[in-house]
Amino acid sequence: MNKTPTPKGFKFAVHKAYFRKGERNDLALVVSEYPAQVSALFTANLFPAAPVLVAKEYLALNQSVRAVIVNTGSANACTGQEGIDNCKKSTQLIAENLGIKASEVLPASTGVIGLQMDMPGWEKAAPLICQKLGTAELEDFAEATMTTDAFPKFAGMNLKLKNGTVCLAGVAKGAGMICPNMATMLSTVLCDAQIDKKDWDLIFKQAVDQSFNRVSVDGDTSTNDTIYSLVNGASGVKPEKDELELLQNALTKILKELAYLLVKDGEGATKVLFIKVSGTKDNAEAEKVARTVGHSQLVKTAMYGKDANWGRIVAAAGRSGVNFDPNALRLVFCGVELFKNSQPTKLDFDSLLKKPLEETDLMIELFLGDGDGHYELLASDLTHRYIDINADYRS
Amino acid sequence: MNKTPTPKGFKFAVHKAYFRKGERNDLALVVSEYPAQVSALFTANLFPAAPVLVAKEYLALNQSVRAVIVNTGSANACTGQEGIDNCKKSTQLIAENLGIKASEVLPASTGVIGLQMDMPGWEKAAPLICQKLGTAELEDFAEATMTTDAFPKFAGMNLKLKNGTVCLAGVAKGAGMICPNMATMLSTVLCDAQIDKKDWDLIFKQAVDQSFNRVSVDGDTSTNDTIYSLVNGASGVKPEKDELELLQNALTKILKELAYLLVKDGEGATKVLFIKVSGTKDNAEAEKVARTVGHSQLVKTAMYGKDANWGRIVAAAGRSGVNFDPNALRLVFCGVELFKNSQPTKLDFDSLLKKPLEETDLMIELFLGDGDGHYELLASDLTHRYIDINADYRS
Repeated sequence: MNKTPTPKGFKFAVHKAYFRKGERNDLALVVSEYPAQVSALFTANLFPAAPVLVAKEYLALNQSVRAVIVNTGSANACTGQEGIDNCKKSTQLIAENLGIKASEVLPASTGVIGLQMDMPGWEKAAPLICQKLGTAELEDFAEATMTTDAFPKFAGMNLKLKNGTVCLAGVAKGAGMICPNMATMLSTVLCDAQIDKKDWDLIFKQAVDQSFNRVSVDGDTSTNDTIYSLVNGASGVKPEKDELELLQNALTKILKELAYLLVKDGEGATKVLFIKVSGTKDNAEAEKVARTVGHSQLVKTAMYGKDANWGRIVAAAGRSGVNFDPNALRLVFCGVELFKNSQPTKLDFDSLLKKPLEETDLMIELFLGDGDGHYELLASDLTHRYIDINADYRS
Repeated sequence: MNKTPTPKGFKFAVHKAYFRKGERNDLALVVSEYPAQVSALFTANLFPAAPVLVAKEYLALNQSVRAVIVNTGSANACTGQEGIDNCKKSTQLIAENLGIKASEVLPASTGVIGLQMDMPGWEKAAPLICQKLGTAELEDFAEATMTTDAFPKFAGMNLKLKNGTVCLAGVAKGAGMICPNMATMLSTVLCDAQIDKKDWDLIFKQAVDQSFNRVSVDGDTSTNDTIYSLVNGASGVKPEKDELELLQNALTKILKELAYLLVKDGEGATKVLFIKVSGTKDNAEAEKVARTVGHSQLVKTAMYGKDANWGRIVAAAGRSGVNFDPNALRLVFCGVELFKNSQPTKLDFDSLLKKPLEETDLMIELFLGDGDGHYELLASDLTHRYIDINADYRS
């Protein structure tokens, strides 16, 4: 396997701090050699976890940061003032060992809600993981942030510009509680270009909107959803103004790849549904229909069962609350037109769809009229394994 | 087992017409000896099934009807003009055999979407079921309308009034695709009181609002949701004006019982969650929070796993879109206070909840502030069996 391209000037470390049961490392650190400009997005949940609150406080103090520390085991959410104090303490422990300020260390946590962090464990782990800095790769970082994830998620690419080559890479974790509203589970994106903060903010926001904000596993927006993007200038390459779009396209590509992997690894998922809705009055209507279809338990289980039960898709669109002309609805599933003019087409869809339904990626296209609105959502199916995982998470 | 009280002047018949695979009867008929006033509510789905469209047409013609005919196997939804023609033909076949008008026969269908009805089967079945009229009971009627239901659902009671005794009874079917928005799956309610249509309409609407409109199995509102209520006056007893409230309470009680049974028999359900939300600005806000919690796959799977993972309940409330003060939230689960002032209480909830979590009925109480808003929703859990049933429905 080729090594994922990794931006210059970032070092990684991972550690087993016994915060989470199991064999894997459960603490992950990335440090930038130079102050890195940062853009971030967080959960819209009314109960943001302590690390979300602390990170927002730190980002109000600093334009740049030096590190991101991610722990699993405890989500440090719904933990009150004690949780906030613990979170700050954890960043302080890392900062001391790196010789930087606590507010230059961005925290992220994932795991059980309501469980306080193991602070004696942090006291022990902080010096050890900082000593190990530089001994891990991007892939190890991704793996150490996993909880119920089945595989680590990372992507990276080099981008040739007029003044030289820059590199972008990202990692993400999160298989359940995934329906980001404003940000996503935990993701860290790194880039070594030289770029103005306000340009990077815009590029980042647009790329997230095209990727993470368009996936759904179970409709549950977590208390901890966080995405950090650090850009440290270590390549020495400054994109020209007319190259910012290239950079944005590259970042969007990486985040889309990560978003796809998140859905593919949706807890117990066996399918990735590409739900494309178009022809509505506006994009918001298309999104509403796409999310209703993508969240429908009946659609999700039919896809898991490799059952071309298209009636469930039409019924979900019909209860979305969007007021379209039912006679206008046309459904194309895996390239086969199944429904139009308020009734099924006469195609032998069971035999036509037998093979496509064996694939992982399933395309659901809904055309709802002449409007310009459109939206694409990636959603997972709903499986026995999802129930296994979530009926037995804490125990 | 005592026979369910059954209103006077109604006769039942059931028949196996081979519309649906399996051993059970799949055609159910109830006929009133006298013209019965009728109130009805239907699905809000944009793709109402043919029987919904036809029933609405018939009810615009008549103030009273004589019969309800329910078939399983085909939902006769998304079937275009052919489906509508077939539906009308089916009511005509029943009407001819009963010597009444087609528009006095209300149709209801449940089963696979997009499948046309078996009209030769109807030609054969119609005379046979009409010949059998009077040979079946309310319970048989309930059973013959079942699809994936695990047990028949019926309830009835006698109500003593000043002028004599009236009787109310109801049946319901439907285990999946349950999240009625305006009506519910299929339900037929019968009453033998003498009552003005406009009084009955009001009583019926209010009773449905307190019962069927407050249950959720999977959030999927069907194309076929229908509830008919027929009142035929056969008891000869007319409630006094000041007794209408008694009648309404009785009807509400019966419909609540049916609603509870629907959730209990939610496809594969093992738990009934009573989700009570209060303290919001208004009832609509409380409903939004209750539905977000009740639809949360993570909450539903935790309940199935008998896991007091209350963080998922708090997180669901926090992403509901309702803007309450997070510090005000108080969560009481099965009588145990788990969360307040933004953090868990110090109770040993795992041991306190071990026994309550073994019960079928689980009480989730969320207090969100000082407002007058409140709402109660009944929801099922999400289980392996749900996946079994729905990943393998058509095949």
